[in-house]
Amino acid sequence: MNDTKTSMPLTVRMRRSPFWVCSNAAGAQGYIVYNNMLIATGFADPEEDYRHLTSAVQVWDVGVERQIEISAPDAAKLVQMSTPRDLSRMKDDQCYYIPTVDHEGCMTNDPVLLRIDEDRYWVSIADSDLILFYKGVAAAIGLDVTIHEPHVFPLAIQGPKADDLARRVWGDQVCDIKFFRHKRVDVNGRSMILARSGYSVQGGYELYYEGEDGGEVLWDQLMEAGRDLDVRAGAPVQAERVEAGLLSYLSDITHDMTPFEAGLGKFCNLENDVSCIGYKALQHKRNPTRQIRPIEIYGDPLPPQGVFWCVIDLKGNVIGRISSSCRAYSYNCNAASGLIDAPYWTPGTEVQVHTPDGLRLGIIKEKFWGRI
Amino acid sequence: MNDTKTSMPLTVRMRRSPFWVCSNAAGAQGYIVYNNMLIATGFADPEEDYRHLTSAVQVWDVGVERQIEISAPDAAKLVQMSTPRDLSRMKDDQCYYIPTVDHEGCMTNDPVLLRIDEDRYWVSIADSDLILFYKGVAAAIGLDVTIHEPHVFPLAIQGPKADDLARRVWGDQVCDIKFFRHKRVDVNGRSMILARSGYSVQGGYELYYEGEDGGEVLWDQLMEAGRDLDVRAGAPVQAERVEAGLLSYLSDITHDMTPFEAGLGKFCNLENDVSCIGYKALQHKRNPTRQIRPIEIYGDPLPPQGVFWCVIDLKGNVIGRISSSCRAYSYNCNAASGLIDAPYWTPGTEVQVHTPDGLRLGIIKEKFWGRI
Repeated sequence: MNDTKTSMPLTVRMRRSPFWVCSNAAGAQGYIVYNNMLIATGFADPEEDYRHLTSAVQVWDVGVERQIEISAPDAAKLVQMSTPRDLSRMKDDQCYYIPTVDHEGCMTNDPVLLRIDEDRYWVSIADSDLILFYKGVAAAIGLDVTIHEPHVFPLAIQGPKADDLARRVWGDQVCDIKFFRHKRVDVNGRSMILARSGYSVQGGYELYYEGEDGGEVLWDQLMEAGRDLDVRAGAPVQAERVEAGLLSYLSDITHDMTPFEAGLGKFCNLENDVSCIGYKALQHKRNPTRQIRPIEIYGDPLPPQGVFWCVIDLKGNVIGRISSSCRAYSYNCNAASGLIDAPYWTPGTEVQVHTPDGLRLGIIKEKFWGRI
Repeated sequence: MNDTKTSMPLTVRMRRSPFWVCSNAAGAQGYIVYNNMLIATGFADPEEDYRHLTSAVQVWDVGVERQIEISAPDAAKLVQMSTPRDLSRMKDDQCYYIPTVDHEGCMTNDPVLLRIDEDRYWVSIADSDLILFYKGVAAAIGLDVTIHEPHVFPLAIQGPKADDLARRVWGDQVCDIKFFRHKRVDVNGRSMILARSGYSVQGGYELYYEGEDGGEVLWDQLMEAGRDLDVRAGAPVQAERVEAGLLSYLSDITHDMTPFEAGLGKFCNLENDVSCIGYKALQHKRNPTRQIRPIEIYGDPLPPQGVFWCVIDLKGNVIGRISSSCRAYSYNCNAASGLIDAPYWTPGTEVQVHTPDGLRLGIIKEKFWGRI
């Protein structure tokens, strides 16, 4: 092994999705472990994966986005206890991006919440066993809820031609689905939820595939229907998500950070008296002294990032860390996100970054590069 | 990649211990991800790792065994809510192996609990974010506790010569530590907890190393002190732990199983009125219809196991699954553990196992092979 890559045995502990065989046969270069499942790291050279995603359409096995199903009369109450975002006006076909927090207002996950009906929700999680938080709360105060992890494995269709592909498979009805809304579609005789969402800013859908069988049938249908669209197997593309400012839980967002530090303050409704467990703590943490910021790092393409890179000011004082970095191919620069101390937030502030290649000059940006 | 091995990038998401550099330089063959950290899979050929562990002494970086520290007046109450094992007579220097369960009596982890003093515990966890369960319970009912993950990274010293090595480093006082008891020792000027415990049955210790620095100093001391004992870097050895019947959470034990199904009934004190959240549910689940059993699988050494292997009876009915398997080198046979339906528990019952090499005959055993 070397500093940026190792070998990993595939064991019983790592669960696979119904799309595993197809996605793997398509030439996944490697995997990372996420929610005790496997997600591909890419299928070609990183730049080629990026160029393809931003020009065509890809199908991603994102079965690692596990669902926590919370149902029965107290479902809404329990979900609200986990997040400072006000859920009271959420519609049955909506998806909400929600920071979830503990008693101290610190992040426990950053899932997408799907409201399926009045007393049934899916919490589509990033990498943490958030289900244990819900189980703990519910058991402790005796809420009338059922909590379990259903056999649901999201499949993402992402890219500028995602609409074309989805229409060919599910008809024009998919055009009616607005951003972060969902609708039921027929998947080979089974009714499943299709949402306009995904971990890219290229547009597209996430199908919440239900069941552990039949994945290869759907996979082949999508590949066949999209042949002339140049559809390919894919996976979230680091360069695309970093330049767009899409955050990664446990990389950019760590469990010692508040939503305000993560730049997610707009999802905190502290004016309303929501019953969030972290409500009181967050009242006192509205004005963070560090926050995630976009940073451009000057020079040639960066080496792969395996650890946080220390950020210092021009005098050598430590002022933060880089958590994600990439070559922003469309912008011909290096894009990064990192947690930066408040005195250095002003766009244009020059900083230095300790990379494995040595110290690099960089600059705090006003916005991320992509379309967010 | 192939069916049993893949390539994994090392990213910011995967935290490393203070022993990472030393352990890695010693020649780790690969890693698996566990509690969002990396643990080596081995350092030599599997049989050589096994023969060495069972004859000499190894130092293991098991920093993946994260600690949940629960302190303040309600600590004992909160810990007791998570497990059916009666903790009321636990002494300040004791370690307890505890099944932890949810409201339905299903396993949420199988940690080792360390009582440090009356109102301070460490829960040394297997692979799940059990901390979120504790946080959920505590916040929901307003317990007076502090819950956090300290910077503690266990280092295991395992093997028949572990006593010799530990005595050379910490003196004869280590001989006074009884099995599953702990004591404070001096580690280069810092007081740390040393327990007689570990994920092997060869005997040995686990040092709960505190702090993120200085790991390489201790590592070198151990390697130097144990040179003539043939001390080597190591990691838990699949063959040794499977033949001994040591279970692995998320392989052998899954979150749909009760402690009774996992064969951990002896750790459930349902006669006493412990305040465990799963207490009522477990009352009704004392007599499982499936349970983890030792199974010998006949024939040549088995291929590496990447998925559960289906177990059928001689008529072809599905009766269970193999979750862990190995070559039991000392016994010249294939040892396995698996979840088996009750009608087939009688030792001597013949079964068949679907392996990637084809159907193999096997037999239900009375006991595991090792020294448990």
